[in-house]
Amino acid sequence: MATQGQVITCKAAVAWEPNKPLVIEDVQVAPPQAGEVRVKILFAALCHTDAYTWGGKDPEGLFPSILGHEAAGIVESVGEGVTDVKPGDHVIPCYQAECGECKFCKSGKTNLCGKVRAATGVGVMLNDRTSRFSINGKPIYHFMGTSTFSQYTVVHDVSVAKIDPKAPLDKVCLLGCGVPTGLGAVWNTAKVEPGSIVAIFGLGTVGLAVAEGAKAAGASRIIGIDIDSKKFEIAKNFGVTEFVNPKDHEKPIQQVLVDLTDGGVDYSFECIGNVSVMRAALECCHKGWGTSVIVGVAASGQEISTRPFQLVTGRVWKGTAFGGFKSRSQVPWLVDKYLKKEIKVDEYITHNLTLAEINKAFDLMHEGGCLRCVLSMDA
Amino acid sequence: MATQGQVITCKAAVAWEPNKPLVIEDVQVAPPQAGEVRVKILFAALCHTDAYTWGGKDPEGLFPSILGHEAAGIVESVGEGVTDVKPGDHVIPCYQAECGECKFCKSGKTNLCGKVRAATGVGVMLNDRTSRFSINGKPIYHFMGTSTFSQYTVVHDVSVAKIDPKAPLDKVCLLGCGVPTGLGAVWNTAKVEPGSIVAIFGLGTVGLAVAEGAKAAGASRIIGIDIDSKKFEIAKNFGVTEFVNPKDHEKPIQQVLVDLTDGGVDYSFECIGNVSVMRAALECCHKGWGTSVIVGVAASGQEISTRPFQLVTGRVWKGTAFGGFKSRSQVPWLVDKYLKKEIKVDEYITHNLTLAEINKAFDLMHEGGCLRCVLSMDA
Repeated sequence: MATQGQVITCKAAVAWEPNKPLVIEDVQVAPPQAGEVRVKILFAALCHTDAYTWGGKDPEGLFPSILGHEAAGIVESVGEGVTDVKPGDHVIPCYQAECGECKFCKSGKTNLCGKVRAATGVGVMLNDRTSRFSINGKPIYHFMGTSTFSQYTVVHDVSVAKIDPKAPLDKVCLLGCGVPTGLGAVWNTAKVEPGSIVAIFGLGTVGLAVAEGAKAAGASRIIGIDIDSKKFEIAKNFGVTEFVNPKDHEKPIQQVLVDLTDGGVDYSFECIGNVSVMRAALECCHKGWGTSVIVGVAASGQEISTRPFQLVTGRVWKGTAFGGFKSRSQVPWLVDKYLKKEIKVDEYITHNLTLAEINKAFDLMHEGGCLRCVLSMDA
Repeated sequence: MATQGQVITCKAAVAWEPNKPLVIEDVQVAPPQAGEVRVKILFAALCHTDAYTWGGKDPEGLFPSILGHEAAGIVESVGEGVTDVKPGDHVIPCYQAECGECKFCKSGKTNLCGKVRAATGVGVMLNDRTSRFSINGKPIYHFMGTSTFSQYTVVHDVSVAKIDPKAPLDKVCLLGCGVPTGLGAVWNTAKVEPGSIVAIFGLGTVGLAVAEGAKAAGASRIIGIDIDSKKFEIAKNFGVTEFVNPKDHEKPIQQVLVDLTDGGVDYSFECIGNVSVMRAALECCHKGWGTSVIVGVAASGQEISTRPFQLVTGRVWKGTAFGGFKSRSQVPWLVDKYLKKEIKVDEYITHNLTLAEINKAFDLMHEGGCLRCVLSMDA
């Protein structure tokens, strides 16, 4: 390609400082170094984790940076030694890497590959510990190893999944974060069995994907909990069978759920990031076996707590990141499931905007009616 | 038998009020009603849970009561409808019942039978919601459905395990609580695999049984943590391979262990009942898969806490009661393992006293050199 080996100047949304509107800038994107891949991002969705970091709540948050981690695109060029993808491949950037070689990947027990974490955690690339993004020579930090709010980005080769080119990128971009997180929390982390009673706290994209996963797993009751009752109509389409609004009850929500289920739910999922709700999610579980999975991301410094008796009497407290999916191995599998119509994706997309409209897209995200807003990056 | 159907007057140690010395009294023990078994207790050991309730820290603690829950004896008589045991059978009372019929027993997921819990939790028998113990007509509460600090006790038929009569009762009485709790925490709750790195907080009887269980499971490193360094010599005999005294370090103990194990342990066990140690036990676990099991019993009202990030990055927090063993099914199996010399029991017994010396026995329990003190109930 004509751009290969060259610095590309393109549009990107830059977060100059916390909570200030993103600014569409002309950004210089350096060529990929050894083990790196430069990707032309075609579609990027917004996720609450972007807003979380942008809002200054992320202790690892760095500024100025290019946010974004749920996207799809096409490989523009690759650095030395990259063999798994080549220019023209359709890909989904993966904030959770998978190298296949580190202690984590080899354990068979986790998807939390550690290979590039030390670099992605501080906004740079592993090879030379610098950023590939700059504006007139001033470096702009990477974010989550993906930085997909840019027309071009550079990612580590262990952080990009090659997918079926037949898949519509404006849809499967969602398989970069929220939908797999919810499905995997049910399938990989909780391992919900047929007949189970499931409670889901928070009916955003992740919570609805939990519902979809629970329905596929054969759950008998899927109870959605949200303080916005308007969400129930949509939630039904994803498998939620009952709805509880904590505002309708004087009793603590965990007690409401225990009463509703003859002793508690088999599995609960916290999809908000609120530590009080995390406690409720644990304590609404059935004695003896109830398992609660933390999916939401809490603000820095906040802590969860409960009486140890809750665990001694058989409840299990765990968490999930990217739903426990091994990214490069399993994102293509999820894309295939979508193509076979075995999982929903289109149904989560409520808005389509352009990169230039990204601040409006963030505003939309905080409104009840928005699940996912997909940005077309061309415009 | 001559005593069948009669009230038996015998010696028992009565806890009249919290923290006051137990008093050996002549107690009247009523005959067993339907579904009940009267047992002549021959040997009873002391466990920290007895001291916990006696000390007034147990929110369910009732006075006056007869404590004790780790013992062995012989069935004296049975009430109507009891078929699983008969007079003369050697038995171990089980504070954790197993009915085989309730929601819990049928779940296949827990040992926490619920059949008699509503009665044992309030110090009475299920049949008529009264106590079988009295002194000159004044009722004395049952404790944990066992009350083994009495020469005779009455238990529910679902709370007594029939064992091989060849087993020495002065030894296998320990299989009523502490030793199974430790072994089962490893085998049933954590399911430790060969090669695992294990950390054990607190090297009393339960902690040592965890070590024994971990060694049998093939753990590669078994790290004992205790503030009393004298315990290490004994702990070696139970499988502990390394010893860490938090007092020898300035860093938090979780950081010491993470450094010592290249990222954290695979499994940790809290065998003290201290909520700060429970947090350390979780946080010394390896990212991605480390599992922490709460075995110790914390004082009423105390809470555990941590950052949710600890769970989101793959650590699992759980707990265990009676090591997850199904009591009536598996205590006899543990007795058989002891008879085949596959598990230790004798090695935990450091002192032998008589019922009359029970207050001295409690004093001993709080000294570092004491693991289990077995009381001969005849004397």
